[in-house]
Amino acid sequence: MTPQRETLTEPMSKTRLRLWLKLLKTSSRIEGELRRRFRDKFATTLPRFDVMAALSRFPDGLKMSELSDLLRVSNGNVTGIVDRLTNDGHALRVAVPGDRRAQLARLTAAGQAAFAELAQAHEAWLDELLQGLDAADAAVLHSLLGKTEGETDAQ
Amino acid sequence: MTPQRETLTEPMSKTRLRLWLKLLKTSSRIEGELRRRFRDKFATTLPRFDVMAALSRFPDGLKMSELSDLLRVSNGNVTGIVDRLTNDGHALRVAVPGDRRAQLARLTAAGQAAFAELAQAHEAWLDELLQGLDAADAAVLHSLLGKTEGETDAQ
Repeated sequence: MTPQRETLTEPMSKTRLRLWLKLLKTSSRIEGELRRRFRDKFATTLPRFDVMAALSRFPDGLKMSELSDLLRVSNGNVTGIVDRLTNDGHALRVAVPGDRRAQLARLTAAGQAAFAELAQAHEAWLDELLQGLDAADAAVLHSLLGKTEGETDAQ
Repeated sequence: MTPQRETLTEPMSKTRLRLWLKLLKTSSRIEGELRRRFRDKFATTLPRFDVMAALSRFPDGLKMSELSDLLRVSNGNVTGIVDRLTNDGHALRVAVPGDRRAQLARLTAAGQAAFAELAQAHEAWLDELLQGLDAADAAVLHSLLGKTEGETDAQ
């Protein structure tokens, strides 16, 4: 068996391991770049952007527990971010009718405008960071990523 | 212009944004599953596994600063993990000849054996989690991920 033949017969488990390391490196690299740009250009953070994005999709407001479920971050972190957004006038807390202890968080008009600006920059940055992929590449990549679903979603 | 036609002419920036969200969701889902399995089956963590993996590639040892550069985590976190590995007999710190203040961290034989067991499980989990991708899929996905490089690497 020649060395080349050995390469060709790499076990699938090794191929999948190398693929995972590449996937992780790619998403970490792009996420790091987004964090850096949010910090440098808007003095803000990716988790704060994510909270604003979630709130912008639910104009009637979200409970803290719903927000942390959507974002898969801890309730404590979400509460701290909403506190800061509220202090900045970008969010407000409103009482839930019929439930004295529950509160909903909502973006204010100023928060919606600030989010619109951030979202526009975020989309433009990704357009630049992923410019190596054309529409056909993007369709194939999207579809291949979809083929990894099912194993962890079934639980 | 019909709704279908509008979908077909989605701007590339929107396509790339959707692709990024899919990529992030995929890597977060798989990473979350790996964290859960490391915790449930080995009572360990992904950062600890990453530190052991880096040390296993450098049998002569690594400085803390080299370790945190390799892993892109803070020096403080790396130091804490190496402290715990040392307490467990999985790593040791050795003096650097000619530099009284520097220390290298190395895996012990017990640490190498423990890492080998974790690495085998990690590879088997990924083989299962990525089983929806065959060798041809993996090659295409690897190559498309490579096409995203260059924008952030050039800086």
